[in-house]
Amino acid sequence: MNKIQHTAIRPLRTLNLLSREEILRLSHSREDLHRLFRDCALAILNTDSQQDDAEEIFKQFADFDIKLIPQARGIMLELHNAPAQSFVDGKIIRGIQEHISSALRDILYTDFKILAFQSELASSAQLTDIVFHILRNAGVIKPNITPNLVVCWGGHSIPREEYDYAKHVGYELGLRGLDIITGCGIGAMKGPMKGAAVGHAKQQIKDGRYIGITEPGIIASESPNAIVNELVIMPDIEKRLEAFVRLGHSIIVFPGGVGTVEEIFYLLSILLHPDNSQGLPLVFAGPESCREYFNILDKFLRQCLGDEISEFYEIIIGQPDKVAKTMRDAVDNVHQYRHETQDAYYFNWQLHIDPMLQHPFSPTHENMAALRLDRDMPKHELASQLRAAFSGIVAGNVKTFGIREVAEHGPYQINGDPQLLSAIDDLLRIFVREQRMKLGQGEKEYKPCYQLAN
Amino acid sequence: MNKIQHTAIRPLRTLNLLSREEILRLSHSREDLHRLFRDCALAILNTDSQQDDAEEIFKQFADFDIKLIPQARGIMLELHNAPAQSFVDGKIIRGIQEHISSALRDILYTDFKILAFQSELASSAQLTDIVFHILRNAGVIKPNITPNLVVCWGGHSIPREEYDYAKHVGYELGLRGLDIITGCGIGAMKGPMKGAAVGHAKQQIKDGRYIGITEPGIIASESPNAIVNELVIMPDIEKRLEAFVRLGHSIIVFPGGVGTVEEIFYLLSILLHPDNSQGLPLVFAGPESCREYFNILDKFLRQCLGDEISEFYEIIIGQPDKVAKTMRDAVDNVHQYRHETQDAYYFNWQLHIDPMLQHPFSPTHENMAALRLDRDMPKHELASQLRAAFSGIVAGNVKTFGIREVAEHGPYQINGDPQLLSAIDDLLRIFVREQRMKLGQGEKEYKPCYQLAN
Amino acid sequence: MNKIQHTAIRPLRTLNLLSREEILRLSHSREDLHRLFRDCALAILNTDSQQDDAEEIFKQFADFDIKLIPQARGIMLELHNAPAQSFVDGKIIRGIQEHISSALRDILYTDFKILAFQSELASSAQLTDIVFHILRNAGVIKPNITPNLVVCWGGHSIPREEYDYAKHVGYELGLRGLDIITGCGIGAMKGPMKGAAVGHAKQQIKDGRYIGITEPGIIASESPNAIVNELVIMPDIEKRLEAFVRLGHSIIVFPGGVGTVEEIFYLLSILLHPDNSQGLPLVFAGPESCREYFNILDKFLRQCLGDEISEFYEIIIGQPDKVAKTMRDAVDNVHQYRHETQDAYYFNWQLHIDPMLQHPFSPTHENMAALRLDRDMPKHELASQLRAAFSGIVAGNVKTFGIREVAEHGPYQINGDPQLLSAIDDLLRIFVREQRMKLGQGEKEYKPCYQLAN
Amino acid sequence: MNKIQHTAIRPLRTLNLLSREEILRLSHSREDLHRLFRDCALAILNTDSQQDDAEEIFKQFADFDIKLIPQARGIMLELHNAPAQSFVDGKIIRGIQEHISSALRDILYTDFKILAFQSELASSAQLTDIVFHILRNAGVIKPNITPNLVVCWGGHSIPREEYDYAKHVGYELGLRGLDIITGCGIGAMKGPMKGAAVGHAKQQIKDGRYIGITEPGIIASESPNAIVNELVIMPDIEKRLEAFVRLGHSIIVFPGGVGTVEEIFYLLSILLHPDNSQGLPLVFAGPESCREYFNILDKFLRQCLGDEISEFYEIIIGQPDKVAKTMRDAVDNVHQYRHETQDAYYFNWQLHIDPMLQHPFSPTHENMAALRLDRDMPKHELASQLRAAFSGIVAGNVKTFGIREVAEHGPYQINGDPQLLSAIDDLLRIFVREQRMKLGQGEKEYKPCYQLAN
Repeated sequence: MNKIQHTAIRPLRTLNLLSREEILRLSHSREDLHRLFRDCALAILNTDSQQDDAEEIFKQFADFDIKLIPQARGIMLELHNAPAQSFVDGKIIRGIQEHISSALRDILYTDFKILAFQSELASSAQLTDIVFHILRNAGVIKPNITPNLVVCWGGHSIPREEYDYAKHVGYELGLRGLDIITGCGIGAMKGPMKGAAVGHAKQQIKDGRYIGITEPGIIASESPNAIVNELVIMPDIEKRLEAFVRLGHSIIVFPGGVGTVEEIFYLLSILLHPDNSQGLPLVFAGPESCREYFNILDKFLRQCLGDEISEFYEIIIGQPDKVAKTMRDAVDNVHQYRHETQDAYYFNWQLHIDPMLQHPFSPTHENMAALRLDRDMPKHELASQLRAAFSGIVAGNVKTFGIREVAEHGPYQINGDPQLLSAIDDLLRIFVREQRMKLGQGEKEYKPCYQLAN
Repeated sequence: MNKIQHTAIRPLRTLNLLSREEILRLSHSREDLHRLFRDCALAILNTDSQQDDAEEIFKQFADFDIKLIPQARGIMLELHNAPAQSFVDGKIIRGIQEHISSALRDILYTDFKILAFQSELASSAQLTDIVFHILRNAGVIKPNITPNLVVCWGGHSIPREEYDYAKHVGYELGLRGLDIITGCGIGAMKGPMKGAAVGHAKQQIKDGRYIGITEPGIIASESPNAIVNELVIMPDIEKRLEAFVRLGHSIIVFPGGVGTVEEIFYLLSILLHPDNSQGLPLVFAGPESCREYFNILDKFLRQCLGDEISEFYEIIIGQPDKVAKTMRDAVDNVHQYRHETQDAYYFNWQLHIDPMLQHPFSPTHENMAALRLDRDMPKHELASQLRAAFSGIVAGNVKTFGIREVAEHGPYQINGDPQLLSAIDDLLRIFVREQRMKLGQGEKEYKPCYQLAN
Repeated sequence: MNKIQHTAIRPLRTLNLLSREEILRLSHSREDLHRLFRDCALAILNTDSQQDDAEEIFKQFADFDIKLIPQARGIMLELHNAPAQSFVDGKIIRGIQEHISSALRDILYTDFKILAFQSELASSAQLTDIVFHILRNAGVIKPNITPNLVVCWGGHSIPREEYDYAKHVGYELGLRGLDIITGCGIGAMKGPMKGAAVGHAKQQIKDGRYIGITEPGIIASESPNAIVNELVIMPDIEKRLEAFVRLGHSIIVFPGGVGTVEEIFYLLSILLHPDNSQGLPLVFAGPESCREYFNILDKFLRQCLGDEISEFYEIIIGQPDKVAKTMRDAVDNVHQYRHETQDAYYFNWQLHIDPMLQHPFSPTHENMAALRLDRDMPKHELASQLRAAFSGIVAGNVKTFGIREVAEHGPYQINGDPQLLSAIDDLLRIFVREQRMKLGQGEKEYKPCYQLAN
Repeated sequence: MNKIQHTAIRPLRTLNLLSREEILRLSHSREDLHRLFRDCALAILNTDSQQDDAEEIFKQFADFDIKLIPQARGIMLELHNAPAQSFVDGKIIRGIQEHISSALRDILYTDFKILAFQSELASSAQLTDIVFHILRNAGVIKPNITPNLVVCWGGHSIPREEYDYAKHVGYELGLRGLDIITGCGIGAMKGPMKGAAVGHAKQQIKDGRYIGITEPGIIASESPNAIVNELVIMPDIEKRLEAFVRLGHSIIVFPGGVGTVEEIFYLLSILLHPDNSQGLPLVFAGPESCREYFNILDKFLRQCLGDEISEFYEIIIGQPDKVAKTMRDAVDNVHQYRHETQDAYYFNWQLHIDPMLQHPFSPTHENMAALRLDRDMPKHELASQLRAAFSGIVAGNVKTFGIREVAEHGPYQINGDPQLLSAIDDLLRIFVREQRMKLGQGEKEYKPCYQLAN
């Protein structure tokens, strides 16, 4: 294992002007926060590693450590046993150094700044304010430019063909001067950025933006790809999703698994809300091989939320240039609208987001049982319930906490319309067949982690 | 009276990215703060006015008002009956707009950010942290440049010859690539900036810095001169003085009155402190006509603090290029020292400043009587007591609060060494003779506002 | 006399990338050219000298020399016995270094580049092309900005009041974002630049342009003022005048003497030309004290060229802001027109300039006698003849060559309308009375250097 | 065939400030030059085309035309039937527009500027001056930066493995802040640029330089790759080679065919010249699969030029990071040497290049027969003769002119040492076997286009 035994780096950007007291606080961070920071730093230093098994990496670098050393002129980061691949002739690669600075900023520095606000009793407006503060502090919100941000969602573990397609779409977006926001991992999150970088280069655009928005649970297992030049680590999934929809000017969803469906329901719940007349352009896109996938998804969404739901998205198969042209037009329209309403270009304050979509959803049996999947409730509420249900399903299938819960207490009991649950079941089986959903270790066939409550 | 009846401007820089909550808080600022902001804004809009009688200006513009209007994209400032001279063809001059933005930032915005810290119980370290936060927030502290800041102190009401000399020194400083910090008013505060601007222009330096550091009590009566391109309004005199000595790399004192003597004692108290081995280069400079003035000052300082005190300063008469060369060398030495000690170039954290110099001194009879001007106490303490005494004398002579106190309760009673008090008395009489000190309204001869307590 | 005995500087900008052959040619320039360059360099190094007596300066610095030393990396300039005032702590002031580089570029470097074109047989188009090449090579013509250039003409030896007025106009121009072109000397050429610099500073405009356009005969006796940040030395008076009118977007004429009248006739001859329908905004401006001056000038121009001539200019007395506002509007109109006609903003190709205005006019008795001042000829030709006549009068009065000619051969014999000549005579007498025209050495009263031929 | 029927573009950069006369001359260029420009433009517009058969492309776009339209503000390029792939939503891609501007500049504009110098009688110094002028005019020579230019040579038609290796080397060069110069086509010319672009991105280097240096005979058949951000078209092969060695700070040769061997002999002839003590760092690099290739090449070079020749190059197999580290160190050494000798960083004036390597070599039977491949002659002369021989062999095998010559007059007759010729023969057979050399159309086995003269 190639390791750099000992080295020291200086944090960049906003962290190079700390007061004495800030330096002191940073170097005495809470134990759990420091552990989190250490794990994120390790993940960042492992970028481009072929190995995507987080467990394995953590085992190999069990002796890795990162210490914050207060100095007269600022803080120093002392690295021990760091992966050698992030260094060139003993010097850390600048992009990696920036990502680590971002982690330091968002995990340790931001923490004590926003601590006061953090609370289960926070109002919707307060939560949105926190999202804004973190993004502004990260420099992602810029005053004097007109941002052109296209959010790209989709699976991180996808076949080559879908990756190439996502890359091609990114290339066409880049040629049209559009920038990219993704979850900053691999697959559908890396493809569009890589493509856009080439498109930007051909158009001689030197300040292309490749924004990665992640959260601690994700980054520790999924290194940010090296193209990301603005990295933000939001405190939780819900703030991460809110950051996407408030920053982005339009959204593309590439094929993905249950996580992607969770994101779609999150978005549809917002779009369906009666206060959000303004909308957010949304396109589902994939190569010819995904035609069937989107047929199924479309049918499923109609089953859940009624046929009118299809008015909120457009499905484009193939034609990367058409996808990009649609996005360019959509972004122009959004700018036009914001201009007319004197609204900010850099943050979509107008969008109403329901508190249920803002407060973290914890997939306990109790919370899952409290969900109501009832087709008679207002559509935006149903979509919100469905997003929580899928969040639980993701957890029960792949996240440590959820798997343990299910192992201990048996499948989640979900209340709701049997037809809805049966539609979900059908969708998941297809995902398993198409290998868009991992089976549990040792499992041969798909066993749902939930069942209809009676 | 030339007035612009109604217009609206947008704040610049840091204030163009506010959150909803910040916008709300700003537009509902406390009544007294808003009044203060309104007065400062009026003073700024009156820049270059021939009239230096603040009272008169305030009377003429009694109907002036500035309102903060929350908008979707940020905050707007609505101006009513503003002085026309700050507008060109109906559009506000950019420099004025920036100064008003600075006032908004430092008076209203900064206020609620640092409110938590503000307290009489604040420790020395906490007070320094506040100074740092305000300066960082004002953008005066910059990470990626090597600052070359020469502090210029001296009287604001000085004869033409001294003004020309200060300007010439500024010119020579500018030719040597040095930037200027002053109290941002006229006289010895404007001269060096104006000269430096010409020196910079000849050296094709486009980013010359002309930093003005003021406080509400001063700015309202003394408009910042138009050359200032970085304006900061500190909350009180003591934080303003601390800002000077922590930002500056060397200091020039031009001839001035009691206010200038107060600043000199403030500085000497710091330099005499046993923990401050490092020092801060200090030059007293003036034209040939001031040779006698500096003789007297020198003698006075020796009387008060012993002959060794003269090691802390150099007196240069005439020779503006020698003054500038001395400063250039001094600044280079400071950089060298900071480099060796790994200390920051942008803020002198090492300097120990005694809490007594940090906490606002209020010139009540009680506080004045509590002073001890005793030549046996440690020199740095004596200097600190003397600076408080002179602060009180300034107040008793020219500030509303002090004059009222003295009128009501009689002269301040000062305890201390009679010889010291007599030396002070002599100095003040000279100042009156040289018109460096205003007599009270209607007064024909100088009547001290204090007497030796028995 | 304060001299720097020996030092070496490197030329800047375009001259820092020379080929071997260019270096060789430069360092073996023709003797006469090198003499010219040496004189210009000396004049530049004497900038801000109180002494405006060129003869005296040349005598004091008779031992000054500047040598071109070829080096591997480029050319070096070796200075011997240079005036010390252009150096700070032994290092040349950057602005002076740039001016010397400009002289090197325009006198030596440009020379062999355009030599091929230079000829008495050159066509009008070819001469304009030379002007363009010199200006482009000097970097004065810039592709990617929209220039806002106001030409300021007027006397260099003017009373304080007129200087202050010119400065005030410059200040108002600067506040409106306008840049200045002048002849780069003192008086009406320095005032507007100095004022504009302050106006730009208040508007936070950092890239204000202060373009000085001179020619060898002028620069050697008149140092460029230190504010000039783009200096061009045209080969002769006529190309200098053409540079003004092709670069400028509008023109202000402040009060001046015969030289200024020559410039006015040059300009009116162009404006009167039937091919120039487009025009060039022209304002005569001066303080209240010049009201009479402009009355006389106006009357004189009407006498010469008919009452309709007054349509080509506007006279503004006082009101510096009105002058500036008029210029701003004029420049905007010119931009609008150029935009509509797809014409370049940076060079007025459309303007037709008659070859007679382009070829250097040599004030020999033969040439003067060949002039025809006849009110029946087309107005633009008459104006052109008048401009030549005034050129001769300037020479006969103040230029070495002309004075010698007149001393040797007696007064110039001028053919033409007696009334016209009498009007000229009246005007000149007024100029003498107002000290706008120097009397010859030892002269007590004005003796015309010309007479009506019979 | 996807074509844009009609569109117009404006040239960029240096060509946006033309004089009237330049515009006129450009739009009336010589017929043959315009034909050449048209062909280059077509090649550029075909970039990234899968089709590398120039003939085929020219046939498909026989109706393509590009016209120069003089306009008031400059020149316009009118395109007819241009390949659609270079346009996005009807607008030309910026990078393509720049490449076309470069072609216009180097083929038409430069032509009449340097025409005067062009001659068979030109001295060595004059020819070098022309190379310098073209590069300076193209903006490739920059005064104020320290260039770090690594020249990459090698075959354009190479196996995937070698391409990936070249890309990996480029990546490691980019990580070390090095920029790339290549011949601007595909294969070993594209790989290093593509890799370096990723390396630069990771190091947050935004101004990476990807310089492509080509000549009309090459560009017309080989589109510049899209990464090239500085394109220069030299007038002939010899000036192109000189541009490489005078601009570059070190050289990597990847595996290639006869063209690459010609380049190696060109370089060795220079390095062997007794006047060039200084050298130029040279590395032969390839993946493990090329170990044998370099063994053969090394043996061949020793056979031709003696064993000492191997001191002029280092062979590195695999280890892309070692190649890059070697280059970084080499470039640092070159900088150090130039610094010490006061030589320019941007152009290697010191290098002596023999006139025979500078004058175009035309592969006629007469010229080929005049070569002397004699091992007893000075090594640098022999290398120069060998480079000419290989130039002829390249022509006789693949270039229209050479093939026709050989078809008409039979194989070239080459005089020289039989052992040398036999060594050449062996090398070429291996190249054919490894498909590094194309067989003629319809040929089944390799038939040399030359024979030993008797």
